Amino acid sequence: MITANQKKIVKSLAQKKFRSQYQCFVVEGVKLVEEALNSDFLVDDVFAVPRWIESNSNVGAIEVSEKELKSLSSLKTPNDVLAVVRIKQQNLPLDFSNLTLVLDNIQDPGNMGTIIRTADWFGIKNIVCSQNSVDIYNPKVVQATMGSLFRINILYKDLKEFFSSHENLTVYGASIEGESIYDTKMNQEDAVLLMGNESKGIAQELESFIDKKLTVPKFGEAESLNVATATAIICSEYKRG
Amino acid sequence: MITANQKKIVKSLAQKKFRSQYQCFVVEGVKLVEEALNSDFLVDDVFAVPRWIESNSNVGAIEVSEKELKSLSSLKTPNDVLAVVRIKQQNLPLDFSNLTLVLDNIQDPGNMGTIIRTADWFGIKNIVCSQNSVDIYNPKVVQATMGSLFRINILYKDLKEFFSSHENLTVYGASIEGESIYDTKMNQEDAVLLMGNESKGIAQELESFIDKKLTVPKFGEAESLNVATATAIICSEYKRG
Repeated sequence: MITANQKKIVKSLAQKKFRSQYQCFVVEGVKLVEEALNSDFLVDDVFAVPRWIESNSNVGAIEVSEKELKSLSSLKTPNDVLAVVRIKQQNLPLDFSNLTLVLDNIQDPGNMGTIIRTADWFGIKNIVCSQNSVDIYNPKVVQATMGSLFRINILYKDLKEFFSSHENLTVYGASIEGESIYDTKMNQEDAVLLMGNESKGIAQELESFIDKKLTVPKFGEAESLNVATATAIICSEYKRG
Repeated sequence: MITANQKKIVKSLAQKKFRSQYQCFVVEGVKLVEEALNSDFLVDDVFAVPRWIESNSNVGAIEVSEKELKSLSSLKTPNDVLAVVRIKQQNLPLDFSNLTLVLDNIQDPGNMGTIIRTADWFGIKNIVCSQNSVDIYNPKVVQATMGSLFRINILYKDLKEFFSSHENLTVYGASIEGESIYDTKMNQEDAVLLMGNESKGIAQELESFIDKKLTVPKFGEAESLNVATATAIICSEYKRG
């Protein structure tokens, strides 16, 4: 049975300050919880409806009713199971043999989640986020990653410090004024792709670290591409070589 | 001044049945309303706070208070102005000199909006949606298009009928079993890219219309790419030629 205190803690984890305090976050739904259980993240507690427990008797889940699950959930339609997972501290040094993504001030949880999922598709292992980026343990980010969150090293760093201490890297900055990705051969090693904020782009103070600006050529009239979309197209170009 | 009846109608447009009844939809925020006013869509009414009216005195907007705007809005943070715009009937025949997107049962408004925005970036003029796809006049779709909605012809069709009556087209279907987009030269004319539902993919009944299945090669471990992401990568490949 779930205690009143457990309920209170789970619900509080929708807020960043409680995630920081407890060093935990919530993962929801059959697929994502399965990914969490199969990952190297520590799963503290699993709360599930009886039908999930029946087919996952080895997990030691705590039984909750549909109604209790709904009260814990941040989803409109909760999906059988919810887990409380420990935040994992990721650290430098990184392996730069594949492309590294550096995200400056990404704010939209859906964009952040989609970027993590895309990175995982392309075999990108490391993402460095500026400290003002949206929290990757935000429930909407977690859901949008579709489980990829458990497979990518994601760090929050002061990006000026990060770039200053990694001078050997080739930094590609996505910018509307950049050179066409179709005409650029990106370095396969020691390469970093820097993506900027949804409306402001890359912060002025990071400009000096950019070795080459890249753009996805525009053939129509939209003012810009969504940042997760642009990231995906550039990652695809990187991989196609 | 806004009347009680106008308020009721604007709010009702959050629901598809009232959008169908009134043949109108809502557009919000400074940028999007500007795009609507500059488009060939008919703008029925504009409701705005005084500071917007001051700098747009030619529009003939109806003044509302911040509080009234908030009560009309479907955004967390309404942005000065909201317009009621007439639904435009788009029709066949289409010009197939550029790629045409065909969307089968796309459900997520954010994905639909992002696909429309991406199409507009790549100069794609036509999107044909299955009749069970999310409504493009859903407020979340409208916002996610960032104004591109006003520049793309979007039709809802029975896709079996559409494909049956356009036999000369080359239909590329996105599928995990497809051939690598990096190894495929897509036809530049009379080409259609068919994208399937977020979880189910392309409907079985449409399989027989596909001339070639295409996939974005996977280098990592994610089970799938987001559908808007995959669409964007394939559109980029199409344009790079």
